Amino acid sequence: MTVKALGAAAADKPVLPIEITRRAPGPKDVQIEIAFCGVCHSDLHTVRNEWGGTLYPSVPGHEIVGTVSAVGDAVTKYKVGDTVGVGCLVDSCRHCDACHDDLENYCENGWTGTYNGATADAPGHTMGGYSQRIVVDEHFVLAIKHDKAQLAAVAPLLCAGITTYSPLRHWNVGPGKKVGIVGIGGLGHMGVKIAHALGAHVVAFTTSDGKRQAALDLGADEVIVSRNEDEMAAHRSSFDFILNTVAAGHDLDAFMVLLKQGGTMCLVGVPEHPHKNPDIGNLVFWRRSLAGSLIGGIAETQEMLDFCAEHGIVSDIEMIKAAEIEDAYARMLKGDVRYRFVIDNATL
Amino acid sequence: MTVKALGAAAADKPVLPIEITRRAPGPKDVQIEIAFCGVCHSDLHTVRNEWGGTLYPSVPGHEIVGTVSAVGDAVTKYKVGDTVGVGCLVDSCRHCDACHDDLENYCENGWTGTYNGATADAPGHTMGGYSQRIVVDEHFVLAIKHDKAQLAAVAPLLCAGITTYSPLRHWNVGPGKKVGIVGIGGLGHMGVKIAHALGAHVVAFTTSDGKRQAALDLGADEVIVSRNEDEMAAHRSSFDFILNTVAAGHDLDAFMVLLKQGGTMCLVGVPEHPHKNPDIGNLVFWRRSLAGSLIGGIAETQEMLDFCAEHGIVSDIEMIKAAEIEDAYARMLKGDVRYRFVIDNATL
Repeated sequence: MTVKALGAAAADKPVLPIEITRRAPGPKDVQIEIAFCGVCHSDLHTVRNEWGGTLYPSVPGHEIVGTVSAVGDAVTKYKVGDTVGVGCLVDSCRHCDACHDDLENYCENGWTGTYNGATADAPGHTMGGYSQRIVVDEHFVLAIKHDKAQLAAVAPLLCAGITTYSPLRHWNVGPGKKVGIVGIGGLGHMGVKIAHALGAHVVAFTTSDGKRQAALDLGADEVIVSRNEDEMAAHRSSFDFILNTVAAGHDLDAFMVLLKQGGTMCLVGVPEHPHKNPDIGNLVFWRRSLAGSLIGGIAETQEMLDFCAEHGIVSDIEMIKAAEIEDAYARMLKGDVRYRFVIDNATL
Repeated sequence: MTVKALGAAAADKPVLPIEITRRAPGPKDVQIEIAFCGVCHSDLHTVRNEWGGTLYPSVPGHEIVGTVSAVGDAVTKYKVGDTVGVGCLVDSCRHCDACHDDLENYCENGWTGTYNGATADAPGHTMGGYSQRIVVDEHFVLAIKHDKAQLAAVAPLLCAGITTYSPLRHWNVGPGKKVGIVGIGGLGHMGVKIAHALGAHVVAFTTSDGKRQAALDLGADEVIVSRNEDEMAAHRSSFDFILNTVAAGHDLDAFMVLLKQGGTMCLVGVPEHPHKNPDIGNLVFWRRSLAGSLIGGIAETQEMLDFCAEHGIVSDIEMIKAAEIEDAYARMLKGDVRYRFVIDNATL
């Protein structure tokens, strides 16, 4: 079947209305009418081919929420009318150690991205949530328990939410822990909310003095403007964990020295231009770790959605019409969004 | 009292016989007649002032074994005649969180090194094990349970042993784990022996094809010549933990990609010239960690010594006379020692 979508025909072409096809639901498939789709920086990297390897036409979007409109015969988890979500993954090998451990996001044979991934469906690569409808194996579909009225603001949880929740949980953030969140944007603002709900003492790091009050409003206990060396120095060797959401190349050492003995800083973005080469002494002399983390597995994504529903956590969003996508990208590049654009897919 | 020692008068002067003073034992002090002292690369860095901040005369040595010859009134752990050791630390603040957690090696107020550390004793900085006698607070003295005949080969456990044991234990190396040891020298050869005794599957990495059999003899299950790209590629994403003992700047990524999902590589040396800037993607896409570790605490050093005594583990050493120290340094710089020089302090 043919559905309306937003896609780019080439790296140098804008994202415009196009038509794409979706497969008829197979036995294990869930067909979803997409209500809203969050706008992630990865979407822009992909449509512009900034990471290389983009297949065209490219329809991005992996922060998908909507309603089930059909299910295959063998589907057991969902029924027509259910409110559901789809995140960054729509398939994985399902038999490697990682998949067996509910870590499909680290599938040893490579998981299938919600867009630009390999698929048997025409045209041979997956197309994402900037579209009216998507068909996904039930294993990769998430149940959404938030109030229906919050649905648009739930969408970014599917990427920004799980990308921050997973490392916060993996490194045992909770009561009695002092946790830093570096970068108060699409990812970071979710990190602040989730770390706060987990019971940690949350310190938000921003380069912008103007975000001070906003970060406190998100749930931060303290805010540090990272350009202010005195503020930074006052927190030396005091953090249990720092979640660094800034992908742009920067001086990691400025944050590493803020970790206490045994602390970890986790990066969730890969810089386009390298960070300054980190000082190994900052690791050795305090048994610190520099780590990375990528999204999260399906079971943990469900856990995160349930946790957020229970704690009333959604993303702070700005709703846009489909026709506004290129303007949204331009504003996103300037950091001019608090904190996530979400497409109203009814405007497609 | 005056004792004979080996020391350097300045950065550009050789290590030669000198005389130094030792304090009379205070209430909590243990006076030790030093039998043997291992030669660590740190000794050379310090006497040559390669790290800066060396105070002269400089008497290095922090792999110290000997016999108790006097104890203060309040000493409870040791008596005259006991076989004991002293490692890299002779004091710490004893009241910070790290000290409270038996992690004096990460003392938040700075621990006192066995040499070149601040002390009330003349001349104001500590002097190490290249000497006939040392006086140390009992808290920083270790009990040695090995056979007396092995004593010289026990000396390197006090630095090389604990520096490798601590991270191997901290990252839970044991049965069912595949563990890499990078660099088969003074530290690495201890790492192989200890990881093997902990029950792990041990893979030794060396740049030298000539060390293949030697590494197997130390207890490695496999040996990889790291210059051989095919050998390296065959082990991609397969290690739980890698202990990297090579301080010289090198390509960390070549080893990071060998870690499986969730794996950690721990560095125990700080490079004089930086490593190649590590690829952050290797962390993020597999939730890997790059960590550091420094020596170990006093309680863990005792645990390591007891573990090594129980498993018959000592260092492979080459004994030297005091007068041969500069030759030993020259050979150490060429990697021409299997695997640790130990000074016979009777030759002072």
